[in-house]
Amino acid sequence: MTRLIPYERLAQAGTALFEAVETPACDAALIAADLVTNSLMGHDSHGVMRIPEYLDLVKRGGITPGAPITVQRTSATTAVVDCGHNFGPVGARRAMEAAMAIAGEQNVACVITRRCNHVARLGTYVQAAADNNLVGVATCNSPVHGHFVLPWGGKEPRLATNPLAYAVPTSGDPIVADFSTSVVPEGKIRVYRNEGKQLPPGWAVDAGGRPTTDPAAFYGPPRGSLLPLGGAAGHKGFALGLLVELLGSALAGIGPTDPNVGGNGVCFLAINPAAFLPIERFKKLVDETVAYMKSSPPTEGFDEVLVPGEWEFRMRRQRLQQGIPVDVTTWRALVEHARDLQVEWVSGE
Amino acid sequence: MTRLIPYERLAQAGTALFEAVETPACDAALIAADLVTNSLMGHDSHGVMRIPEYLDLVKRGGITPGAPITVQRTSATTAVVDCGHNFGPVGARRAMEAAMAIAGEQNVACVITRRCNHVARLGTYVQAAADNNLVGVATCNSPVHGHFVLPWGGKEPRLATNPLAYAVPTSGDPIVADFSTSVVPEGKIRVYRNEGKQLPPGWAVDAGGRPTTDPAAFYGPPRGSLLPLGGAAGHKGFALGLLVELLGSALAGIGPTDPNVGGNGVCFLAINPAAFLPIERFKKLVDETVAYMKSSPPTEGFDEVLVPGEWEFRMRRQRLQQGIPVDVTTWRALVEHARDLQVEWVSGE
Repeated sequence: MTRLIPYERLAQAGTALFEAVETPACDAALIAADLVTNSLMGHDSHGVMRIPEYLDLVKRGGITPGAPITVQRTSATTAVVDCGHNFGPVGARRAMEAAMAIAGEQNVACVITRRCNHVARLGTYVQAAADNNLVGVATCNSPVHGHFVLPWGGKEPRLATNPLAYAVPTSGDPIVADFSTSVVPEGKIRVYRNEGKQLPPGWAVDAGGRPTTDPAAFYGPPRGSLLPLGGAAGHKGFALGLLVELLGSALAGIGPTDPNVGGNGVCFLAINPAAFLPIERFKKLVDETVAYMKSSPPTEGFDEVLVPGEWEFRMRRQRLQQGIPVDVTTWRALVEHARDLQVEWVSGE
Repeated sequence: MTRLIPYERLAQAGTALFEAVETPACDAALIAADLVTNSLMGHDSHGVMRIPEYLDLVKRGGITPGAPITVQRTSATTAVVDCGHNFGPVGARRAMEAAMAIAGEQNVACVITRRCNHVARLGTYVQAAADNNLVGVATCNSPVHGHFVLPWGGKEPRLATNPLAYAVPTSGDPIVADFSTSVVPEGKIRVYRNEGKQLPPGWAVDAGGRPTTDPAAFYGPPRGSLLPLGGAAGHKGFALGLLVELLGSALAGIGPTDPNVGGNGVCFLAINPAAFLPIERFKKLVDETVAYMKSSPPTEGFDEVLVPGEWEFRMRRQRLQQGIPVDVTTWRALVEHARDLQVEWVSGE
């Protein structure tokens, strides 16, 4: 049974659980808030369910709570953030803060990470840039064991789902786009498998590279692959995925098949619109562009045109009122971790 | 009948024709070389056929040969290039040169244009960045009269085909990607119409927003629309197209429906990999990534995996040897312009 739990309660529980594995208090609160906010905004796959997953990773040594993070400013406009295998959201927040600080001074910034763990929802970070009146762009790759997306024309996978995100400030909620450069992220296939449904055509191939609509043929073993974004124009999705790979690996000095690399390779760009025009004028023009997009009458099957991020901000308002749905598997994992870690708050349920 | 003409002859003819409409000699040579090179690299739609088109635009006052171009350095890392309605390739080259100079000093640069005419193939400019050991990213939007791409969920168009390009240096030919953020550029529909063929499904809708495979239903009148890149994941293509629109218009201080704006709105980003690691090490890692992509065995219908730009560089080598195919319509237009302008070289054929 899925429970509906208020944001505050989940954020407090998450904070207590992360503190119980020796995470400094402010980091624990940040990670919990980021993950619970991802659920609040409708992205459950990057939300509350990651709390037990991150706790497991701490136990297995993949995440080092409180690990020092160093920001090496390699030039006036660039920095490398070594996240030291701290929690991904802690490292990525620090990297985006560096990018925002640099863009505040220099108008344009490029910041990359090393030894960064899973950063959860990439949109989180670019949204922070937009909240600070910057245009934020982010890319995020994964090392070789996460490569299950085909290069265009190939039948063995060579890329991860390599998401791309950007955010642009408006007078209201920012525009926040965040999407994988494959047709779908792997998590969507998992949902179809769990529901016992066939996949839509054009999402996946089996281990032999043959198109399949069977989730089992994708998962194997041997495992199949996902197709790059674009369908018959999949060379475009491949081009985007390759750019994300190069910014996450080569620019960070990492080879494409290094088996010792884990986590995510993140690249943040920040651009200050005020370098070109007064920020209020920029926001007004973005508002006008949003209104122009939304003035297109809806096509069949749609109620209206939504700009990127609009659905998420609506979901946030709705779930702030109604609570966040937590599935039974995630709930049990939270309760179990709370019991093991002797965290009163959850185990007292 | 399609003729095969050597690169040099076409470049010389183009230069002579542009000089004959009062284009300064070095600009004339640059425009001709860029356009003929686009054909050389297999992109005929952005190549030789644009020579007569640009000459027509000069006659109609849309292009001002020799117009002053001003580079306003708005900060250490940013510039606005006012192209003064000079030829698009002249303005865009100048803007990319500014971005490269800034990135050489500051490691990261963001340069936008105003009053820039049609820039032809966006890949041209990012390739110049890669040839100078920089990562180049470019976006290019078009004003309201070129809006024939649907926003996701809408049935009236709100965006142009808004291409995105990037280039990354390697030890050999750079990676050069350049693609529209619609499923296809409009030119592809024109090819189907001219050949009397039906379109593949998923490319276009008629003026009522209904899916169509009939090129005539797309062209109207009333005109239909193109779909954003991505098929069922078309929200991703829409998100990309919207970013290109905002970087080309709002950042340049231009409203989304300003009827007085023509040409292209270009945004160039340049990043110096040497800010992060020695450039030779970066190129070696990019080489390894390319080799890793290409090591994926080809799937059915493909001979091999090609990285972005690889097809174009092969085509360049082939057409340098065999000549560039020039269709009869383009050839006649060139001959006609040469006669009108009393340019000996072509009319002497």
